[in-house]
Amino acid sequence: MEKAVLITIGDEILSGNTIDTNSNFIASELKNIGIKVSQIITISDEIETIKNTLSAAFELGDLIITTGGLGPTRDDKTKKALAEFFNDEIALDEFTFNHLKGYMERRGRLEILERNKEQAFVPTKSVVFQNHYGTAPCMMMEQNGKLSFSLPGVPYEVKPLIKDQIVPYLKEKFKLNYIHSRIVSVVGIPESILADTIEKWELALPENISLSYLPVGTRVKLRLTASGENEAALKQQTENEVQKLLPLIKDNVIAVFEDKIENILAEMLTERKLTISTAESCTGGELAKMLTSVSGSSKYFLGGIVAYATEKKIRILNVSKETVHQFTVVSEQVAQEMAKGCQELFDTHIALSTTGVAGPGKGEDGKEVGTVYYTIRINDQEMTSKLYMPHLERLDFMNFVSQKVIQDLVGLLINS
Amino acid sequence: MEKAVLITIGDEILSGNTIDTNSNFIASELKNIGIKVSQIITISDEIETIKNTLSAAFELGDLIITTGGLGPTRDDKTKKALAEFFNDEIALDEFTFNHLKGYMERRGRLEILERNKEQAFVPTKSVVFQNHYGTAPCMMMEQNGKLSFSLPGVPYEVKPLIKDQIVPYLKEKFKLNYIHSRIVSVVGIPESILADTIEKWELALPENISLSYLPVGTRVKLRLTASGENEAALKQQTENEVQKLLPLIKDNVIAVFEDKIENILAEMLTERKLTISTAESCTGGELAKMLTSVSGSSKYFLGGIVAYATEKKIRILNVSKETVHQFTVVSEQVAQEMAKGCQELFDTHIALSTTGVAGPGKGEDGKEVGTVYYTIRINDQEMTSKLYMPHLERLDFMNFVSQKVIQDLVGLLINS
Repeated sequence: MEKAVLITIGDEILSGNTIDTNSNFIASELKNIGIKVSQIITISDEIETIKNTLSAAFELGDLIITTGGLGPTRDDKTKKALAEFFNDEIALDEFTFNHLKGYMERRGRLEILERNKEQAFVPTKSVVFQNHYGTAPCMMMEQNGKLSFSLPGVPYEVKPLIKDQIVPYLKEKFKLNYIHSRIVSVVGIPESILADTIEKWELALPENISLSYLPVGTRVKLRLTASGENEAALKQQTENEVQKLLPLIKDNVIAVFEDKIENILAEMLTERKLTISTAESCTGGELAKMLTSVSGSSKYFLGGIVAYATEKKIRILNVSKETVHQFTVVSEQVAQEMAKGCQELFDTHIALSTTGVAGPGKGEDGKEVGTVYYTIRINDQEMTSKLYMPHLERLDFMNFVSQKVIQDLVGLLINS
Repeated sequence: MEKAVLITIGDEILSGNTIDTNSNFIASELKNIGIKVSQIITISDEIETIKNTLSAAFELGDLIITTGGLGPTRDDKTKKALAEFFNDEIALDEFTFNHLKGYMERRGRLEILERNKEQAFVPTKSVVFQNHYGTAPCMMMEQNGKLSFSLPGVPYEVKPLIKDQIVPYLKEKFKLNYIHSRIVSVVGIPESILADTIEKWELALPENISLSYLPVGTRVKLRLTASGENEAALKQQTENEVQKLLPLIKDNVIAVFEDKIENILAEMLTERKLTISTAESCTGGELAKMLTSVSGSSKYFLGGIVAYATEKKIRILNVSKETVHQFTVVSEQVAQEMAKGCQELFDTHIALSTTGVAGPGKGEDGKEVGTVYYTIRINDQEMTSKLYMPHLERLDFMNFVSQKVIQDLVGLLINS
């Protein structure tokens, strides 16, 4: 199997200022065409470091993809390092320059600045893949049959370059093994007990199938990754292994194909023609965002309310003042009334509500940071739960709770 | 300055299944205490690879932090690699075992499984930092005055270990230079023109101050990073350079301290005692989530509506049926009516609205994917804008639009 090394160039990642999302995207795209990423290395924007890393990467992999360090500003040195590493020179590429001029003209920037013109200078041995969403082109170099691609660092320039140009190129260039992945999602069983339960099955897996445990909140995703020459045979082989696995953990399985919990839910809601709405307090919109992040969610998600202020909970969601007064706003009873009010407001089969204290400051009624009540209402049935997660930071808390609410809903729908 | 190397161990990152957020968090915490991360390396969970990478990392840095590969399952091999690398043996640590028992008892899991007990086995030369939020302890090893810390991979176990235990330890252990960072946020000027405008100033910066360009959507963040022995002198020196910079770009500066646009807005709203609400369609809750991600946002954010279905826009936000009929739901007019309805519903000074097509499927009225109208309404004034971003994926689109709306609001508030 072809091996890839990803190199991320940029001090903004090393300083903790920016999260490297490019590597994740590229690794996932490469996996789909059967190329395994063996290392991801983030380095600073220094010519010697870039050259040394390229050299080490060519030892490790057949394919190198670098991102970053191609902007028009003074702190970007990737191109110079590339030319030195490949004993090449940088020269103006007319075709790239024309592409750049067209790109800038379409954006109404008629005067090409010197700095932008510099972006049409590339190593003379490089094959250029034009960038349709930015000014820095992608350059491919070859060394002893191994390839390196140098891309800019902006994620929405990286994505189309990889998807529309580099992946199709690699597919044609290499004769690749098929890779097939299956995810089985499991809840309600700690990772260590799960591992004990399926140990024999795991040890008996064929050599071309590997297993990973991926914990996400209170859920564990078991991923089987199989590689082989025949796509159909591979799928069948994986399916056979999944069929042996399922009886061992059948009470805990919540999905056998889909990966993300919001996608699992999307399938269920679409299939059963159910609609859903949300009423959020401490999750602040994250729950709605998670549901609407699925393409096609407008079929089942009718809307949501973020009722942050207590008075809005009362007025818009019809939560009773007495309930708030008697039980405080972070309570089982308020969660229930929010869900009911939400269901009525949006006229949906299902309504979800959250009320809690994300922190770091205490809530208005003095409830402990990390406390949340949430209600899942399906038609006229409802379930209310409490979580206490004091160790999570604000954004992690919002995400964890939203994941858990959707996961519980999936669990309820499976059993109904 | 002390240099650190971060090693992320785990196939789930290499396969593109999980985004590595730990490195970002750790790098940012280290930067605050003046430790520079010189490389971040993600490798697979194989004993030889881990040992080789440790060896290379000890060449590069004074401090190594590894995350991942310490779970109770079969695919985690970090501890074995650690023992081999340091010529050590693994043995049961009684103190760690008692801590583990206490941890599991508090969670009602009285029977300690063999696999969990294994987690109390550590290299005999290691200093253990107990994990209060999981079962895998953190192990510190020393080699020629250089340190390595091995942590589990779960982000909410990593964060408190780093913040509460490792950072205080490092502060005391090393005598560290102070690091001071300042961010100046700039809008409305392309990176290349900005670079030209401030070139002379940049070249004249003192040696201990470095500059980075960090583009975020349509904004560019200029980060100055200064290092030195005296904190107060460093702050003054940086401030002096910022004061020289500002006149060069004064029409484009939107913030001179805060980093994230939602924090910049938070300061303005709090200071001016303004309240805000949101009415979202295509951003699906992301805008509300971005606003509520700021601690203390309940002071100004009163609530939001995600009105996904057209009928809900009409009923809850009071958008007129005729407007939808005449102009379609993705239109300037509907954005305006949504903002107005939202402002009335939540009774806020400011209301933000978005209506558009996030894709990949076309919207119900056939508008092009990537089209969005948004309205910013402040008291009785309003501004409506259109964006067309067909190249963004669904989640990126939701994020980009939300960033832009908040950024425009900040711009309007500055000039009002």
